[in-house]
Amino acid sequence: MTMFGLKEAEVAQLVRAATLDDDLDRDEIEARFARAAWSGIAEPGDAVANLLIDERGPARALAALVDGLPAADLATPYLSEADAQQALDRWMPRLAPPVVLQWLRQAARHGARLRVPGDPLWPAGFAALGDHAPLALWTRGPDEALAALERSVALVGARAATGYGEHVTMEASAGLVDRGFAIVSGAAYGIDGMAHRAALASRGHTVAFLAGGVDRFYPSGHDALLTRIAEHGIVASELPCGSAPTRWRFLQRNRLIAASSLATVVLEAGWRSGSLNTAAHACDAGRPVGAVPGPVTSAASAGCHRLIRDGKAELVTTADEMAALAGGPEPEEPQYTREHTRVLDALSVTAQRTVDTIAARAGLTVAQTQSELARLEVEGIVRERERGWTKRGAPREP
Amino acid sequence: MTMFGLKEAEVAQLVRAATLDDDLDRDEIEARFARAAWSGIAEPGDAVANLLIDERGPARALAALVDGLPAADLATPYLSEADAQQALDRWMPRLAPPVVLQWLRQAARHGARLRVPGDPLWPAGFAALGDHAPLALWTRGPDEALAALERSVALVGARAATGYGEHVTMEASAGLVDRGFAIVSGAAYGIDGMAHRAALASRGHTVAFLAGGVDRFYPSGHDALLTRIAEHGIVASELPCGSAPTRWRFLQRNRLIAASSLATVVLEAGWRSGSLNTAAHACDAGRPVGAVPGPVTSAASAGCHRLIRDGKAELVTTADEMAALAGGPEPEEPQYTREHTRVLDALSVTAQRTVDTIAARAGLTVAQTQSELARLEVEGIVRERERGWTKRGAPREP
Repeated sequence: MTMFGLKEAEVAQLVRAATLDDDLDRDEIEARFARAAWSGIAEPGDAVANLLIDERGPARALAALVDGLPAADLATPYLSEADAQQALDRWMPRLAPPVVLQWLRQAARHGARLRVPGDPLWPAGFAALGDHAPLALWTRGPDEALAALERSVALVGARAATGYGEHVTMEASAGLVDRGFAIVSGAAYGIDGMAHRAALASRGHTVAFLAGGVDRFYPSGHDALLTRIAEHGIVASELPCGSAPTRWRFLQRNRLIAASSLATVVLEAGWRSGSLNTAAHACDAGRPVGAVPGPVTSAASAGCHRLIRDGKAELVTTADEMAALAGGPEPEEPQYTREHTRVLDALSVTAQRTVDTIAARAGLTVAQTQSELARLEVEGIVRERERGWTKRGAPREP
Repeated sequence: MTMFGLKEAEVAQLVRAATLDDDLDRDEIEARFARAAWSGIAEPGDAVANLLIDERGPARALAALVDGLPAADLATPYLSEADAQQALDRWMPRLAPPVVLQWLRQAARHGARLRVPGDPLWPAGFAALGDHAPLALWTRGPDEALAALERSVALVGARAATGYGEHVTMEASAGLVDRGFAIVSGAAYGIDGMAHRAALASRGHTVAFLAGGVDRFYPSGHDALLTRIAEHGIVASELPCGSAPTRWRFLQRNRLIAASSLATVVLEAGWRSGSLNTAAHACDAGRPVGAVPGPVTSAASAGCHRLIRDGKAELVTTADEMAALAGGPEPEEPQYTREHTRVLDALSVTAQRTVDTIAARAGLTVAQTQSELARLEVEGIVRERERGWTKRGAPREP
């Protein structure tokens, strides 16, 4: 048996290792392998890849490439033939299924997991990215730290931070951890690094989104820090192992930081800082943005003052104000019940399953399962098809 | 001949000395003496005094007190008998015309001038105060400095300023002077003092509003500074010489700072700083408010951050941004033409004058005078009565 021209057993073994899920059926393995492939074929934020995957599912979308389908066959009312042709021109040079096996092997070597839309821990905030959502997410670190993204604040800022900026970042990070928030950032020198460090020191959850593969820690001076984050927090990337960070990927990485958090706070930023890009992504994703003021004599605060003057950020001075920005001082109700998570775990995006099968997989009664499926259907998260239930891929926000 | 029970010649001599105007007729002398009296009878911001003076003119309003008219006689559709009675209870203990002569003598001794609504240099911005406009203004310093109020920015802030706050204030004050603005403040220690000092150092105009009489420099540690301001700028108060500064008068003094300037900028302010009161007065007067951010670790910037967070002030970081707040980088056209000023000078609030008389007094042709009167009438600044033209008292903004 082959899958995309590869030995199916080898694919299955590597996908199961990368997902830590021995119960995956053939369809699920194929879909996950395809997402892994897509994560390296398309550059971050590729809307055409998302459109194609939404239309066909990841496996059939990948098969279309492997089978050499012409652009005309890929076109839909939402995707012109010209755009499809351009996309094929971008993607085809990178299409090499055997390389995907290397990515999966490299992931296994570093204890990295492959996460795909529909997974219970797939960051809910990515839904705000719409067609620009990541196609997959590679993560290192414990599940509980990834789950903590649900209630997180992004703390970002200049690499060339001042002592003042680092001090305020430390207070903000520790204060937000005390209030039950996870800290999201980009692992850069300066503000980012301090945000992660202070969260770890406060025994909080912290998530670092990288612009390259999670096997290549960047910047190299943060090797020790990223090693600690991968152990106690999460190091994540939408690109497969081995991918180099590029300028485009840094800018796209910023959208993951912004979308995965409840709010983004810029602690120090020069007049043209990359943090302003993260703030813009947060705005686009409908997330509140805060900026910390500083001395007007400090160039490292000029970008923060600019955001506030332009009405793009709220001025925030304390962890309390940042927490309020992220949605009030009191912790919100957990978004998911146990039934919710288990039923979703028991569903596949592609394979249609009966209520009995789902109940057995979820370890719930049939009544519990039916009730939860009904609720999920109302929320548009699952749907009933001819031969059973499936769950949707990356959900869209209205 | 007597005036309010005083020797008319003595009153006339003192009023002429305090106004540096030898051409005043009996009505004008009486009106100015009455305003001088009112400035000490009513506490700053007394709306009932303004209503009464608007209704009767300052002299007849004062005569009503001297003649002991009952509250019922003072009541109007806009002033209830009860409010009139309360006002009489406040005012009568302070009614002592001979004391007004002492204020005028003391003013002469200190070279202080008495300014009244309708004077060409009466600060136009006071119109925004409506019924809370000052009843008179006592000033020390050259006319040109008072005229500079027309294009001025108020720089205010904490007494307990930091080195950072003083540095930024110095830059702001010097930068605004360079851009043609006069600097208004309250002569307090800290930010206020630095604002005045930097304006003087840049050979700019600066105006200090005091909460007590202009013969009593406060705080005493700013005696030398206020002496220099009185020489090159303006020291002003709505209270007559000898008046002590009180808490109420400080708060009311702040409304004069706010209303006389095009914009108010708070440079440093603690959480409950008096500068926030000045900012609130500026808001009430429809003037833009700016606040300079600082380190969030500095208590001296907490009030500034609060103003920005509450949407009560715009964040400003440079003199350019402050100038823009005050109405754009380029100087506005002078508000008044030569004809405007001369015709207004030639008019009285009380005495009705013919066009010929006005033309002669103004040194203009009859045609010029008629044309200017027509313009002023459209603007509601003058009106034609039975026996000639008069000008209005404190003008109201729509």
